[in-house]
Amino acid sequence: MISFSQNQSIMNENFAIVIHGGAGTILKKNMTPAMEKAYQEKLQEALDSGYTILKNGGSAIDAVEKAILVMEDSPLFNAGKGAVYTNASTNELDASIMDGKTLNAGAVAGVSHIKNPIKLARVVMEKSEHIMLSGKGAEDFAKQHQLEMVDSAYFYNEHRLNQLNKIKKTEKIQLDHSDEKNQGDASAFKDSKFGTVGAVALDKHGNLAAATSTGGMTNKKFGRIGDSPIIGAGTYANNATCAVSCTGHGEFFIRNVVAYDVAALMEYKNMRLVDAANYVVKEKLVKLGGEGGLIAIDKHGNIAMPFNTKGMYRGYKKSSGESEILIFKN
Amino acid sequence: MISFSQNQSIMNENFAIVIHGGAGTILKKNMTPAMEKAYQEKLQEALDSGYTILKNGGSAIDAVEKAILVMEDSPLFNAGKGAVYTNASTNELDASIMDGKTLNAGAVAGVSHIKNPIKLARVVMEKSEHIMLSGKGAEDFAKQHQLEMVDSAYFYNEHRLNQLNKIKKTEKIQLDHSDEKNQGDASAFKDSKFGTVGAVALDKHGNLAAATSTGGMTNKKFGRIGDSPIIGAGTYANNATCAVSCTGHGEFFIRNVVAYDVAALMEYKNMRLVDAANYVVKEKLVKLGGEGGLIAIDKHGNIAMPFNTKGMYRGYKKSSGESEILIFKN
Repeated sequence: MISFSQNQSIMNENFAIVIHGGAGTILKKNMTPAMEKAYQEKLQEALDSGYTILKNGGSAIDAVEKAILVMEDSPLFNAGKGAVYTNASTNELDASIMDGKTLNAGAVAGVSHIKNPIKLARVVMEKSEHIMLSGKGAEDFAKQHQLEMVDSAYFYNEHRLNQLNKIKKTEKIQLDHSDEKNQGDASAFKDSKFGTVGAVALDKHGNLAAATSTGGMTNKKFGRIGDSPIIGAGTYANNATCAVSCTGHGEFFIRNVVAYDVAALMEYKNMRLVDAANYVVKEKLVKLGGEGGLIAIDKHGNIAMPFNTKGMYRGYKKSSGESEILIFKN
Repeated sequence: MISFSQNQSIMNENFAIVIHGGAGTILKKNMTPAMEKAYQEKLQEALDSGYTILKNGGSAIDAVEKAILVMEDSPLFNAGKGAVYTNASTNELDASIMDGKTLNAGAVAGVSHIKNPIKLARVVMEKSEHIMLSGKGAEDFAKQHQLEMVDSAYFYNEHRLNQLNKIKKTEKIQLDHSDEKNQGDASAFKDSKFGTVGAVALDKHGNLAAATSTGGMTNKKFGRIGDSPIIGAGTYANNATCAVSCTGHGEFFIRNVVAYDVAALMEYKNMRLVDAANYVVKEKLVKLGGEGGLIAIDKHGNIAMPFNTKGMYRGYKKSSGESEILIFKN
C-alpha cells in the first residue's frame, strides 16, 4: 500500500539543504545591523558546511548533522553553546536526528554536559538499540562512546543569565529568542520568542534526513521535555515523503504531532509538500494557538519554510544554484 | 478542512472502554490456570471500574485514568506496582494521557517514587503549561501537587528482580512480559515479551481519551524513554478520529509514530478504525520488525485491538452489552 522505495540506485544531481535557527518575535526594528549580519553569516556558514557534504556525494544525515554542529557551536542560537538557562540556572539540552532511508532515529533529552547534543543523538541512533535516552543516563552513554564532555562553565553566557534573572522576576516561563536589542527591557519577554536550530536535507542518493537541537525554554522547570527530541513532533524524515524540523512552542508541536503530520498529509492525502507544511503551521497550529514554524524538504528537492510568528532565522541552498538566507517576514 | 467538532451537545448512550495489559509471547501452554484467572479477574476489575464511570455519565478521561489505576496497583502488569527493574536495580516509570476533546495531554518519563504515574500525567496535563516532565523534576512537580510518593521498597518484587538478574547474565535488554511459567528458565527471555497497560474510552458526551502507563524494559540503561510517554507514539486521542494506546517494542512505535498514524489514516485516507489499526500493526510495524499491539476506539464506539505477537492482555465493554476479556490469539 505504501512504498518505502528509496531510489538508492538513481544518482541524481538534485540535492538541497534547508536550515533554521529558531522562530519568534524577530523584528528588523529590534535588531542592530551588526547583529543581523552576525546571524546571516553564521546561517550561511551552517548552510555551506552541509551543502558541501551533499555536493561531494555525502549523505543527507552527515549534512544535517554538520549544519547543526555549526549552529550548536555558536552562542547566537539556543542550542549547544548558546543554550538558555533552566530555573535552576543549569542548561538542559535536547536533540534528535532521523534518517529517512532507514526510518532509524536517535534522540537525547535533558543533557547538561555534552558539547554537541546532535552528535550524541546520532550515536544513539547508530550505536544503541534505543531511540531516546535522557538525563544522566544519556551522559553515561556519551562517555562510553567518547563524546566530548564539557562542564557547565562552557555554557556560561551573561546574556542568557540576564534573560533568566529577568524572567524569574516576572515568574513566567519564557521561550527563546529574546529581542536582542530589548534585552534590557523586561517587557520584551512578554513576546513569545523561540530558539532551537534545525536542518533537513536531500542528498544525491535520494535520501532524506532531519535534525533538531535546542536548549529548551528559559526558566524551564521540572525536567520539561519539549518537541525537539521527540520523533514525530519536532523531527521526522522518511524517503517516501519528506524531512521536517520544527521550532516553536513545543507543547503545541507535541499535541499536533507536527513533523509527522506534514508527512502524513503528503502520503495519505497526496498533498504537495508546501501545501502540507502551510496547512499544518498556518491553519492547524494557529487554530490551537501554537506559535512557531518548520522547515521541510521532499524527495524531489522541493522545500517549505512556513512560520506563523514575526520571523524565523532560515536559509536554503539547492543544487540548482538557488540560495537564500532570511530572517524576517517577506 | 478538518473538523474538530465534538458533538458535545449530543448526549448519546453509545459509550465504551477498551483496555490492554501488554502484548508479547503470551501462550496458553506457558500459563497456569491460576495465573490466567488472576489476569482475567484484574482486567475485568479495571474494565468495570472505567465502565461504571462512563455509565454514570462521567468523562472518558476519568474512565481511562481509573482503569489504568487498577492495573498500576496490581503486581501483574509492568506498570506502577509491578514495574520491571532497570539495569541499576531501580524502577523508572513512564505514563501519558490525552484528552480527545481539547487535544491537551500530559506525560511523565523516568519517575521512580510516584505510586501512580498516570495520576501525575493527568496533573501535568491539567496543572502545568507543559506536556512532558521527566526524572527528578517531574517528582518535584508531583510533590508540589501532593501526589502519593513511595520509596523504592514499594516496587520490590522478587519475580521482577529475578528477571533482571537472569537477563543481566545474558546481557540482553529485555522487554516485559516474561512467560510466567518459564521464569526459572533463562532461555524464555529470548522471546520478546512486553508489558505496559493502556485504556481508551468514548463517553456519553462523545469525548474520547487515551492513557498508557509502563515500567519500561527490564535491564534498561541510560535513561531510555520508550513510546509510552510520547504523545503520537504510545498515546493519542482526538474526538475527530480516535483514541489509541500502544504496547510493544517502543522504539518501533516511536519511529512509526504509531498512535497518531492510526488517526491520520482515518482522517486523511478515510479508513475505518479497524482497517487503519490493522494496517499499522499488521503491515507497517511488521515490515520494520516492530512487535506489539494497540487498542483503539473511534467516535462511534467502534473498537480495534490488533497485535502481531502471540498474545495481548485485552478487554472491552460496550454500552450495547457486549464485553470480552481476551489473552491469547483467537
